[in-house]
Amino acid sequence: MTATLDDLLRRALAEDSPWGDLTSEAFIPVTATARAALVAREPGVASGLTAFARTFALVDGGPVACELTCADGEGFAAGQVLATVSGPARAVLRAERVGLNLVQRLSGIATLTARYVAEATRGVEAARDTTATRGATARPAPRPAPRIVDTRKTTPGLRQLEKAAVRHGGGHNHRFSLSDAVMAKDNHLAVLTAAGLSVGDAIRAARERLPHTTTIEVEVDRLDQVEEVVAAGVDTIMLDNFSPADLAAGVALVAGRCLVEASGGINLDTVAAVAATGVDLISVGALTHGVASLDLGLDVEVSAGAGAGNE
Amino acid sequence: MTATLDDLLRRALAEDSPWGDLTSEAFIPVTATARAALVAREPGVASGLTAFARTFALVDGGPVACELTCADGEGFAAGQVLATVSGPARAVLRAERVGLNLVQRLSGIATLTARYVAEATRGVEAARDTTATRGATARPAPRPAPRIVDTRKTTPGLRQLEKAAVRHGGGHNHRFSLSDAVMAKDNHLAVLTAAGLSVGDAIRAARERLPHTTTIEVEVDRLDQVEEVVAAGVDTIMLDNFSPADLAAGVALVAGRCLVEASGGINLDTVAAVAATGVDLISVGALTHGVASLDLGLDVEVSAGAGAGNE
Amino acid sequence: MTATLDDLLRRALAEDSPWGDLTSEAFIPVTATARAALVAREPGVASGLTAFARTFALVDGGPVACELTCADGEGFAAGQVLATVSGPARAVLRAERVGLNLVQRLSGIATLTARYVAEATRGVEAARDTTATRGATARPAPRPAPRIVDTRKTTPGLRQLEKAAVRHGGGHNHRFSLSDAVMAKDNHLAVLTAAGLSVGDAIRAARERLPHTTTIEVEVDRLDQVEEVVAAGVDTIMLDNFSPADLAAGVALVAGRCLVEASGGINLDTVAAVAATGVDLISVGALTHGVASLDLGLDVEVSAGAGAGNE
Amino acid sequence: MTATLDDLLRRALAEDSPWGDLTSEAFIPVTATARAALVAREPGVASGLTAFARTFALVDGGPVACELTCADGEGFAAGQVLATVSGPARAVLRAERVGLNLVQRLSGIATLTARYVAEATRGVEAARDTTATRGATARPAPRPAPRIVDTRKTTPGLRQLEKAAVRHGGGHNHRFSLSDAVMAKDNHLAVLTAAGLSVGDAIRAARERLPHTTTIEVEVDRLDQVEEVVAAGVDTIMLDNFSPADLAAGVALVAGRCLVEASGGINLDTVAAVAATGVDLISVGALTHGVASLDLGLDVEVSAGAGAGNE
Amino acid sequence: MTATLDDLLRRALAEDSPWGDLTSEAFIPVTATARAALVAREPGVASGLTAFARTFALVDGGPVACELTCADGEGFAAGQVLATVSGPARAVLRAERVGLNLVQRLSGIATLTARYVAEATRGVEAARDTTATRGATARPAPRPAPRIVDTRKTTPGLRQLEKAAVRHGGGHNHRFSLSDAVMAKDNHLAVLTAAGLSVGDAIRAARERLPHTTTIEVEVDRLDQVEEVVAAGVDTIMLDNFSPADLAAGVALVAGRCLVEASGGINLDTVAAVAATGVDLISVGALTHGVASLDLGLDVEVSAGAGAGNE
Amino acid sequence: MTATLDDLLRRALAEDSPWGDLTSEAFIPVTATARAALVAREPGVASGLTAFARTFALVDGGPVACELTCADGEGFAAGQVLATVSGPARAVLRAERVGLNLVQRLSGIATLTARYVAEATRGVEAARDTTATRGATARPAPRPAPRIVDTRKTTPGLRQLEKAAVRHGGGHNHRFSLSDAVMAKDNHLAVLTAAGLSVGDAIRAARERLPHTTTIEVEVDRLDQVEEVVAAGVDTIMLDNFSPADLAAGVALVAGRCLVEASGGINLDTVAAVAATGVDLISVGALTHGVASLDLGLDVEVSAGAGAGNE
Repeated sequence: MTATLDDLLRRALAEDSPWGDLTSEAFIPVTATARAALVAREPGVASGLTAFARTFALVDGGPVACELTCADGEGFAAGQVLATVSGPARAVLRAERVGLNLVQRLSGIATLTARYVAEATRGVEAARDTTATRGATARPAPRPAPRIVDTRKTTPGLRQLEKAAVRHGGGHNHRFSLSDAVMAKDNHLAVLTAAGLSVGDAIRAARERLPHTTTIEVEVDRLDQVEEVVAAGVDTIMLDNFSPADLAAGVALVAGRCLVEASGGINLDTVAAVAATGVDLISVGALTHGVASLDLGLDVEVSAGAGAGNE
Repeated sequence: MTATLDDLLRRALAEDSPWGDLTSEAFIPVTATARAALVAREPGVASGLTAFARTFALVDGGPVACELTCADGEGFAAGQVLATVSGPARAVLRAERVGLNLVQRLSGIATLTARYVAEATRGVEAARDTTATRGATARPAPRPAPRIVDTRKTTPGLRQLEKAAVRHGGGHNHRFSLSDAVMAKDNHLAVLTAAGLSVGDAIRAARERLPHTTTIEVEVDRLDQVEEVVAAGVDTIMLDNFSPADLAAGVALVAGRCLVEASGGINLDTVAAVAATGVDLISVGALTHGVASLDLGLDVEVSAGAGAGNE
Repeated sequence: MTATLDDLLRRALAEDSPWGDLTSEAFIPVTATARAALVAREPGVASGLTAFARTFALVDGGPVACELTCADGEGFAAGQVLATVSGPARAVLRAERVGLNLVQRLSGIATLTARYVAEATRGVEAARDTTATRGATARPAPRPAPRIVDTRKTTPGLRQLEKAAVRHGGGHNHRFSLSDAVMAKDNHLAVLTAAGLSVGDAIRAARERLPHTTTIEVEVDRLDQVEEVVAAGVDTIMLDNFSPADLAAGVALVAGRCLVEASGGINLDTVAAVAATGVDLISVGALTHGVASLDLGLDVEVSAGAGAGNE
Repeated sequence: MTATLDDLLRRALAEDSPWGDLTSEAFIPVTATARAALVAREPGVASGLTAFARTFALVDGGPVACELTCADGEGFAAGQVLATVSGPARAVLRAERVGLNLVQRLSGIATLTARYVAEATRGVEAARDTTATRGATARPAPRPAPRIVDTRKTTPGLRQLEKAAVRHGGGHNHRFSLSDAVMAKDNHLAVLTAAGLSVGDAIRAARERLPHTTTIEVEVDRLDQVEEVVAAGVDTIMLDNFSPADLAAGVALVAGRCLVEASGGINLDTVAAVAATGVDLISVGALTHGVASLDLGLDVEVSAGAGAGNE
Repeated sequence: MTATLDDLLRRALAEDSPWGDLTSEAFIPVTATARAALVAREPGVASGLTAFARTFALVDGGPVACELTCADGEGFAAGQVLATVSGPARAVLRAERVGLNLVQRLSGIATLTARYVAEATRGVEAARDTTATRGATARPAPRPAPRIVDTRKTTPGLRQLEKAAVRHGGGHNHRFSLSDAVMAKDNHLAVLTAAGLSVGDAIRAARERLPHTTTIEVEVDRLDQVEEVVAAGVDTIMLDNFSPADLAAGVALVAGRCLVEASGGINLDTVAAVAATGVDLISVGALTHGVASLDLGLDVEVSAGAGAGNE
Repeated sequence: MTATLDDLLRRALAEDSPWGDLTSEAFIPVTATARAALVAREPGVASGLTAFARTFALVDGGPVACELTCADGEGFAAGQVLATVSGPARAVLRAERVGLNLVQRLSGIATLTARYVAEATRGVEAARDTTATRGATARPAPRPAPRIVDTRKTTPGLRQLEKAAVRHGGGHNHRFSLSDAVMAKDNHLAVLTAAGLSVGDAIRAARERLPHTTTIEVEVDRLDQVEEVVAAGVDTIMLDNFSPADLAAGVALVAGRCLVEASGGINLDTVAAVAATGVDLISVGALTHGVASLDLGLDVEVSAGAGAGNE
C-alpha cells in the first residue's frame, strides 16, 4: 500500500508544516545531524512502524534513515526501542510529530485488539473448563475462540492502516467497505417489509445479481428473525445487541448453517462471556473509534553542525 | 474551510464505498426515500455537525438535505436530536457511516475539552476561595482561569476539524503547524549548547530573521532555566512536566514578563491543581489523541419506493 | 459513482481540449445554441448513457442539458434515438467526442455480452432438449444457464464503467480487483509446491487469516487437481482451458461442493457447448479487451447566434 | 511523457488493487522472488513496452526490474520474448494484469496500423503498375503512399499512448486535441450558412485571429464544395465519405493547392483503393476504437522464499 | 477553460487562507454583507475579469455574486468601475486579494500588449507615409502591421491566462507549448552540424514524421542562413537579434516564401522601426515576463450584520 | 518545501510540454547530451536557484545534473555563471524555459528587494548624520534601519518562492496568509463602527479568542486613530498612506508601545525618507507584483549522439 500510504503521509506532512519549520530554521544549523530512538513508554503491540519509517523517508530535507528494531504485530515491553532514525536534524524534527501521531494511534489499536483477543480466548477456555468439570467423557475437538473483528468505524482516511492494526493485534478484518460485501441491517429489512417483500426472497434476488465472490450477511435484532434469514441462505448472520443467553440460543438455532456474528456494545468486560456462547465472530467498534494513543516517544540526540541556523 | 473539508469528505466517501454500496443496490429501490435523525445517546458538546451535514450534501446519489437542530459549540442532552436528514434512501445509507465517524469523534473532542475547561475553572475558583478565606480586604481583580489549549497531536488529515472541536468545547488553539509560530524544545536548546551558543543570543537572532508577526515560545524543564529564557524576550515560556509547586514558583519568577504555559501529562485529575498555580495556558495532548468517540446514532426511517432494488 | 466518474470525465475533457477548442472559437458564435440527438447506427444494448449525459453536464461552457430516451441495459434498434442534448453550441461540440468515445465503447461491451449470454442460454436449452428427447419422465428443475462473467482485462481507468456494461448486457461481474477476493492461479500453486506445502493446507491457512467475507477461488489445469482443491473447501474452482468433455467430468467430480467456473479462450463459437457442460460460471476476457465500439453518432443541429465567432 | 504516464499507471494500479492483493498475501511468501517473460502468442508490432516496464517500476512492493528485448515500433514473431522481469514475486504478480492490459491493447493498435499502412502501400503500388502497364514512357517520380492517420476516437485517458502506438505501427498522427489545430466539420459550416457567412470569409477571419502556427482543415461532403474551401486557403481539405472515384476527382480539383484527406468508414478491405486515388492522408477511426488486444502473455517462474505467506 | 481555471483559483485561495481568515473571523459578524466595486486607478485594457469573477464564485463562505461592467479585451478609463461584487462580507474579503492579484497582472499584460500593437501600427503607417511621399502612383494594398506575438516566458501555471491577456490587448499568440509546433533554435541547428546533417535534410525529415497539422519554424542568427532554411520549406523563419536593416534585407530574401518573425530584445522604443521592416510577426518576451500589475482596487462597503464576529 | 515545489514544477513542466517536445524529438538524437551554463546578463541577487536545479531533476527524460555555483541570497556580477547543468540534450532543452522563467522572476524580486533595503539603510544613515551634525554629545545607540517587508500581492501559486526571494534580497516577510496573523484594515474597522462597537473592545475580544501565538496588527489612515488602537494593545500599527511628517508624528505618538509599519505606495524614490521617520517596518507591494524578470540566460552546448532524431 505504499502509494496510498505515501499520499496520506504527504498530506499529513504538509498539514504539519505547510511552509517550513520556523523553529528549526531559526535554531538548528542546516548541517546538524540527529539520531533518535522510538522508545515505548508502556508495553504494547506494534503497528504503524512501517508508516513511521516511511514518514522519515518522505519528509522535506530528508530522506532520514529509519531502522526498525521491532516489527508490526510484535509485542514490546516498556522501555524497548522500536526504531532508530538518523539524518539531517531539521528533517528528523520535522517528521517527528507526524510519525509519532501515526504509530501511537495504530499501536494503540493493535494493543487494544490484543486485549480483546486475549479476553475472548479466556472466555472460551473458561467455558471449556466448566463443561469439562461437568464431566463429558468423549468430546469433540474444542471450538476455537471466536474472531475479534473490526467495523467501518475508522478514522476518515486511515482505514487501511487501522484495519492492518487490528490484524497486527491478532484480530481479523470485517468487510473493507460498502463495495466488497453485503451487510443488510434493520433499515434494509424495514424497506423490504414496507414493500411487501420477504427477507428470503430479497436475499435470493440479491444473490442472483451479485458477483459470486460476494458474501451476504444479515443483521437481526430478535431470535424469532433467525430462522427465516438462515434459511434464505446467508453466509453470516449478525445477532445485534443479544444477551449472552440469547446469543447461545441463536447459535443453537443456526446449528452451523452459516457463521454467527455477535455485535453491539461488547466491551472488555463482556467479551469473554460473549465468546463463551459459541459465536464465530465478535465485532467491536471500539477497536478503532474509542482508542487511546499508546505512549511512545522519540528520544532525540542532535549533533550541531558548523554555523548558526539559517535557511 | 469548505474546500479543504470537501476534499477530506470526498476521500472518506470514496474510501467507504469505492465502487458502490452493494447492499443498498440489492435491497433498496432506487426510488426509496429516507428521513433520519441524528440522536445523542449521551450528553455532550457538539462539534462536526457542519461536516456531518456536508457529507450528506456530497454523497453520490445525493444531495441529501440536512437540517441542523443544534450548532457546533452547543451542549446537548441525551436523547436530543442534533440534525435531521432526508433524501434518497440509498444516499442516506451511503453517507451514514462517514458522517457519523466524523461527528462522533469531533463531539468527543469538544465534550472532553469542555470537561477540562470546567475543571480548570473549578481549580482557579477553589484557589480564590482559599485566598479569600485567608482574608485580604483589598484585592486585584480575580485572575481568569488559564486557557486549555490543544497540541499538534491530532489525527493526520483532520487537524482543522479537531482544532475547531477544541474551540467548540471552550478551549483555545495553540499554533496550527510548524510554520506559524516558533516553539523551541529541549532538542533545540541542546543544539545551541552543543554549538556553544547562549539561549538568549539564539532567541534574539531568531527574532531578527523571523516575521514580526511570529511569536516565540521556549520550553524549559527546570526552574533554573526560566530567567535566561524570559530575559531573552520570549512571548511564552513552557514549563514542561513541572509539579504544581514548581509551576507556581515559575509563575512568580516570570512575574508577568511573558505568558506561562504548563504542559506534560496533565489530565482531568490534575488540571485543577495546575490551573490554581497561576499559569496562563495549559496544553493537553489528550484532547485530541486520547479521546473516545461520543455515542451518537442515526435513526433512519425508509419509505420504500416502487419496485425492487436494482442498479 | 458520480465522484469517480466525474474525475474520469474531467481528465478526458482536459485531454481532448487542454486549452480550448480552436475551431469552435473561430467558427461558432458564442451565443449559438445547438440541439443534437444520439442516434444508433446499428442495433445493440445500451451502456454508458449516464456517462454520456454527465460529460455534457461537466463540459466547459456548459452545462448542456441531456435527456436520455433509452436506459443503460436496454436494447435498441438501428435508427433509434438514445438521448438528446441541447445547450450552447460550443459546449455541445466540445463534449461530443468524449461522450461518444465512452458510450460507443461501453455499448459495444454490453452488446457483445448480450450475445454471449444468449449463446450460453441457447447451449443450455439445446442440452435440455437433447436430454428430454432421451426421455426421462421425472426430472429435477432445469439447471439455469451459467453466468457469463467478466475478468480484470479492462481498460486502465475504466473498470467500473466496463464492469457495469457487462451487467447491462446481462452478464455478471467477477471480483472487482485483487483486493476483494482470492483467486489462486497456477503461479500461486507452483509456489506452494516449491515450498513443500499442500494446496489444502494453504487454502485452510488462507481462510484462517482472511476476512470471513472473502471468498476463495482456485484455478486448476487438470482434472486430477480437482479433488484436492475442492476438498480443501474453496468457494469456486476454475477449470482453465478444459475441453467440454473435461468440463463435464469436472462438474461431475465437484458434485455441487462448490461453484465451477470455465475459463480460457472461450468465444462466441464455443460458449454454447461450454454452457451445456453444467458449469456455473463462464469467464470471457474478450468481453472487455477485444470489443469494437458500437456505431453511435451525434446528429447536431446548430442555431447560429448573432455575430461572428469570437472568444 | 514519464510524468503523465506515471499518473496513469498509478491510477491503474490502485484500481486493480486498492488495498492489497489478497491472494499473494495469502499464498506467496514475502521473500519469494519471481522471474517472468513477456511472450508473444501471435506475431505483431510492439507498442506499450515502455509503459509495461514502467508499471513494474512503480508497483507497490517493487520496484521490479524489467529488461526490454524488443522495442516499441519493432515487429515480432509468435513465441518471441519481448521483455523479462524479475523481482519480489508479490510485486510481479500485482503488476502483471495492469502491465498486460496496456501492452496488449497498444500492440494491438500498432499491429492493426501496420496492416493499414501495408494495404495503403499495396494500393498505391498496384495503381502504379496499372499506369505503367498503360505505358507512359517519361513519368514523374512515383507519388508516395498516403499517410494512415489516427483520429480523436481514443480511449479516455490513453490518448498519448494510443497515438504513439499508431506511430509505432508506421502510421501518422492527426491533431492531438481540439486545442492544437482547426478542423471545421459540417456542423461548423452549417452555422456559417445559417449566419449568412461564406466559408471563405470565415476561414480568412479564423486565420487572422489564430496563431500563425495553427493549421486549418475543413471537411466537405460533396465535390461541389471543394473549390470554395480550397480557394479560401485551407491547409488540408477532408473529403468525407467519398467514393474512390469522387476522391480521385477531388484530388484533381485540388490540384496540389492543399493536402487532401480521405475519411469515413475506410477499412482494411477498402483502404488500398482509397490509397490509389492520390489522397495525401487517410484517417481511420478503427485504429484506436475498434481494436482487439494482441495476445501477449506473462510466463512466470516463482522461487518460493522461506516461510509461508503473510503480510 | 473553466476546469483549469478553477483548479488554479482553488490553489490560490488555499494558499492565501489555508485554515481560515483570522481577521474576518474576529472582526466581521458572520451575517455581515458587503458590496464592493473593482475600480481602475489608471487607464488600461481589461483582462482577467472572468477569472476575478470566478474567484468570488469559488471562495469559501461564498458564492459572492459578481457582475462585470467591462469585458476582457475592452479599454477603460481611470476611475471606471469594472465589476461589482456583493455577498457575505467575510467571503468578499477573503477572495479580494486573490482576485486582485490576478486581474491586476493580466490587465497589466493586456495594457502593455496594446501599447506594443499601437507602436507597431504607428511604425508601419509612418513607413507607408514615407513611401507615399516618395510618390508611387499605383501601389499594392498596404501591408498590414505585423502581429505582436507572445513567447513561452510566462508565469508557471498561468500560461493560458497570460496568453489570453495578450489576445485581449490586441496581440496574437505564438505556439502554446513545446508540444504543438516546431521551433528549431541555434542549439538544434548546432546538433545537426555536429552530426554532419544539413538543415534542409533535417527539416524535410521532420516534416515527414510530424503530424500534417504541425508547422515548422526555424531561427537564424545571420542573413547567410536564410536561404537554406527557407528553401527547405519552413512555415516561418525567425530572424533573431537582427538590426532593422538586416530584417528588411531578410524580408526581401524570403520574398513571401514563408512568414518572417523578428525577435530578440525588441522593446517599446524599437518596435515601430522593426514593424516598418516588413516582417510578419514580432515576438516580445516582455509582454509577459516584465510587466507591472495595473493599479486596480476594490472599494468595499460592509453592512454589519447583527452580533459580534465569531466563527 | 520540496514537496510543494515539486508539485509546482511538475505542473509547470506539463504546461510547457503536455505531450512531448516536438522540436527536440525531430532534431535532437535521443542519445545526444548537453552541457549548459546559467549565465547572468546583468548583476543582481540570486533567488530561485534551488528551484532551477530541481526543474532539471524532475524533467521527463532526465534527471539532468545541476551544480550551483552561486547560492540563493548571494549577489552576482554580469557574466557570472550561476549554475551548470549536464545530461540528455532533449531533457536539458525541455526544462530550459521552465527553469529560466522561475529563476529570472525570483532573482528579479531578490534584486529589487536589495535595492529597497539599501535605500532604506541610506535613508536612516542620512538621518543619523543630520542629527549628528546638529551636535548631540551623548546619544543612544543608533536605531537600525526599518525592515523592508513583503505583502500578499504575490503570484498565485508562487507565494512561498516569492517570499523566500524577498528574504534572499535582505528583506523580511510579513504574514504568510490570512490564516497566520490578524491584520484589521479600514473595512474591518468600518464594520465595528457600523455595529456600534469600539476598536478597543474589538481588539480585546479578538485577543481573547485567538491563539496566544497570533499577533494583531491594525491599519489606520489618520493620526487621530493611533491612540485608541495602540491603547487597545495591538502588536503592530500600520500607518497607511501617511506623509513622512505624519509618519514621524505617528512614531512619536506610539512611543515604543508597539511596532509601527508604514505602507501605501512607497517606492524606490520615497523609501529613504520613509525609513528616516523611525518606523519599524516598511511594506512594499511592488517587491512582488511589479517586478521585471532579471536577464539570465542558458548557454547550451550540445554533443550530438549517433543517429538522427527520433522518438
